[in-house]
Amino acid sequence: MTNALPNDFLKELLELDELDCFQNLNERRRFSRDFYDYSPVLAKKLSDCCADIAVKPYSIKAVISVVSICSQYEIPITLRGAGTGNYGQCVPLKGGVVIIMSALNSIREFDSFTGQVTVEPGCLMGDLDKYLSDKGRQLRLLPSTWKTASIGGFVSGGSGGVGSIRWGFLRDPGHLHGLEVITIGDYPQQINLDASSSEALNHAYGTNGIITALTLSTAPLVQWHEITIDCASWTDAVHLLKRCSEVAVNLFLGSLLQKEIVENIPNWSGESTGQHRLLFLVDPDGIKTLKRLAIERGASFNHLGKEGNSNGLREMTWNHTTLHMRSIDSNWTYLQMLLPLNEIEAIKIISKKWKKNILWHLESVRQQGGQRIAALPLVRWQGETELKELIDDCKNVGAIVFNPHVVTVEDGGLGVVDADQVNAKKSFDPKGILNPGKLKGWL
Amino acid sequence: MTNALPNDFLKELLELDELDCFQNLNERRRFSRDFYDYSPVLAKKLSDCCADIAVKPYSIKAVISVVSICSQYEIPITLRGAGTGNYGQCVPLKGGVVIIMSALNSIREFDSFTGQVTVEPGCLMGDLDKYLSDKGRQLRLLPSTWKTASIGGFVSGGSGGVGSIRWGFLRDPGHLHGLEVITIGDYPQQINLDASSSEALNHAYGTNGIITALTLSTAPLVQWHEITIDCASWTDAVHLLKRCSEVAVNLFLGSLLQKEIVENIPNWSGESTGQHRLLFLVDPDGIKTLKRLAIERGASFNHLGKEGNSNGLREMTWNHTTLHMRSIDSNWTYLQMLLPLNEIEAIKIISKKWKKNILWHLESVRQQGGQRIAALPLVRWQGETELKELIDDCKNVGAIVFNPHVVTVEDGGLGVVDADQVNAKKSFDPKGILNPGKLKGWL
Repeated sequence: MTNALPNDFLKELLELDELDCFQNLNERRRFSRDFYDYSPVLAKKLSDCCADIAVKPYSIKAVISVVSICSQYEIPITLRGAGTGNYGQCVPLKGGVVIIMSALNSIREFDSFTGQVTVEPGCLMGDLDKYLSDKGRQLRLLPSTWKTASIGGFVSGGSGGVGSIRWGFLRDPGHLHGLEVITIGDYPQQINLDASSSEALNHAYGTNGIITALTLSTAPLVQWHEITIDCASWTDAVHLLKRCSEVAVNLFLGSLLQKEIVENIPNWSGESTGQHRLLFLVDPDGIKTLKRLAIERGASFNHLGKEGNSNGLREMTWNHTTLHMRSIDSNWTYLQMLLPLNEIEAIKIISKKWKKNILWHLESVRQQGGQRIAALPLVRWQGETELKELIDDCKNVGAIVFNPHVVTVEDGGLGVVDADQVNAKKSFDPKGILNPGKLKGWL
Repeated sequence: MTNALPNDFLKELLELDELDCFQNLNERRRFSRDFYDYSPVLAKKLSDCCADIAVKPYSIKAVISVVSICSQYEIPITLRGAGTGNYGQCVPLKGGVVIIMSALNSIREFDSFTGQVTVEPGCLMGDLDKYLSDKGRQLRLLPSTWKTASIGGFVSGGSGGVGSIRWGFLRDPGHLHGLEVITIGDYPQQINLDASSSEALNHAYGTNGIITALTLSTAPLVQWHEITIDCASWTDAVHLLKRCSEVAVNLFLGSLLQKEIVENIPNWSGESTGQHRLLFLVDPDGIKTLKRLAIERGASFNHLGKEGNSNGLREMTWNHTTLHMRSIDSNWTYLQMLLPLNEIEAIKIISKKWKKNILWHLESVRQQGGQRIAALPLVRWQGETELKELIDDCKNVGAIVFNPHVVTVEDGGLGVVDADQVNAKKSFDPKGILNPGKLKGWL
């Protein structure tokens, strides 16, 4: 079943201590995929990709041993966190070994002076956030899959999410303060990178080093309250999202779902009223201010109460919106973009052409110090040609598109090679066996 | 000495309980001025303005009694907090009675759910901030005179200051949640205004109601650290101020002083190095990130430690910069403006013409959801014609000027009449005896 691997290599690997090995095809398949099937393009491209073996180390020593053997035999290594990404970051394009990092999940240190936490990559973000709450802190940025996503996977492949309305994006200086990394080679080294050097591994899909610990900023703990505001007019709804984002209120989430989305996703924010819906997580102090702004716009304000432990607004926004819509009809896919400043006009132009083949889902984010509107619209799948045409249309109205239908770091970002990422790969993975095919600057 | 006042009026006033009266000329003069002499224009215009009597009520009942008598005799009333403003807001243009609100200084209530505090207007902001710190909270916005300024005076005449880099300006929804107000008339009423209705009295110089209590938002307490960064290049310094303001760091102050200013003001941030100086108050978590950004620009980073009780960066920025420069040479005056987005180019154009008659002092602020740069440049006084020319030059490069050389609410703001302010005056001061001459929309 793993006949692609040299026998000697396999023998050495299977003899390692503190390592589980998965050779069964079903297991290998399971550990070779993430949520890339949100994209029909990626689904087609990645469905046959499969590790030749998946391994789960229980110690850093075991990781080092695996790396050393892989390096000697030049076997590709692909890292896997919890597999909750959407871009195939953990899919082994060229087979080889998948290293499942989930057992390296210790929270090593909490610095009460700075609030920074040092944690191993396999720690689930839900567990980490719970740990922090006992210290009066919380994570600043979380994906909608925060309960089950791993922190290492998020930093390696995520970019923002819940919290981006206040804290911007993961690659903004101030979030990631240091990394402990294992380099790839016959004699792997364990090294520590400072904040500047760490940036090259931030959102690099695990192509240029194996992260074994991360030091991250946190925020003071707030008991967020869930608010919805329903608007009959789309234009009013967009204006209100922008207005609520710019006033003196502490927000952790600000999303807007077109009414057709509200009608189809779970009713955790209340039944659809046939209107567009704004979703907010707000500091107790800001509840009345949001109410005031809603009333001034003639919109319906609803205070759902404080966040509980069950599914709530976090699980209705960012890529969970996409998830819910796809669970109704798998012909929905999506795009990701930063809208131009004239959001309403841009949306109108796109919608005029694409009609009900696009449904708008907006997220308020902080970008380069300003409140901006990002969009993760649902897109009716019509084929690759139509998708490309839609992307071009979005670019033509001034949106910056972060294409989720591609496998490389660069194509999913701004399309340009980041020299620091490539240089880090030269230093830390000179043979190029880490996640081959994902870093375009290396290809 | 108070022969401008009717004898019967004076007799009634002097008989009131819980009221101190000041009839002596020196006292009346002292209670009729603020720091308006920062402006040679205002100094000339206001130097002869003097109350006919100043009174200090010790209860709201006493305020009501004073108002009732003033209303019956149609005697002007001007409110005074701590007198730390710069625009003559508390100067009685038409004599009459000055009411000193300093004895109404109780902190009435702290809401631990929202963090909001309800306080009487005479409470000093330093005392209020100290009270809040015991609750794990702090004020969001403070003037550089925060230790001695009254909260009522700040809300009535201030706009922002320390904290504006994070929390914007006082009139942004979310800061002021309610007011208790005494209306003006023969039978004064004590009424409560909600957040929306309160806005008309926010920054209205006490022209349209007497505030007897304010409910304000607060922020979680942070032990701020003082940082300076010295830059040889002005362009680098401005870029660094903007960069530090847009990254994922929690800041409470971000100021930039041209080197000629650093050389002349107190050395509380360290001796001048002959370079331009950035001043920051930063969360412990952000210290290293600022250091990293400074080093990337080739600038000198200096961590002064945590804020203490003595004079520090707060007392070197906002209008304290102006204060210090004027204490060296009273020919310095100042302007206030929001710079256009091409700050460096705008500054270059102005400086090319005005040379060393203008020294730049910048403040990073949050304005309509975006990080922007405000300027409070020192201006060498050459006369009213030159001042007007400079203001026009600033407007021509795209700055929005908030002229501190005028006495009306509107001229110091955007120059337009605010109908809500005027309507509030119609309702709460129909005879127009409150601070006459300051609300242009009423004149």
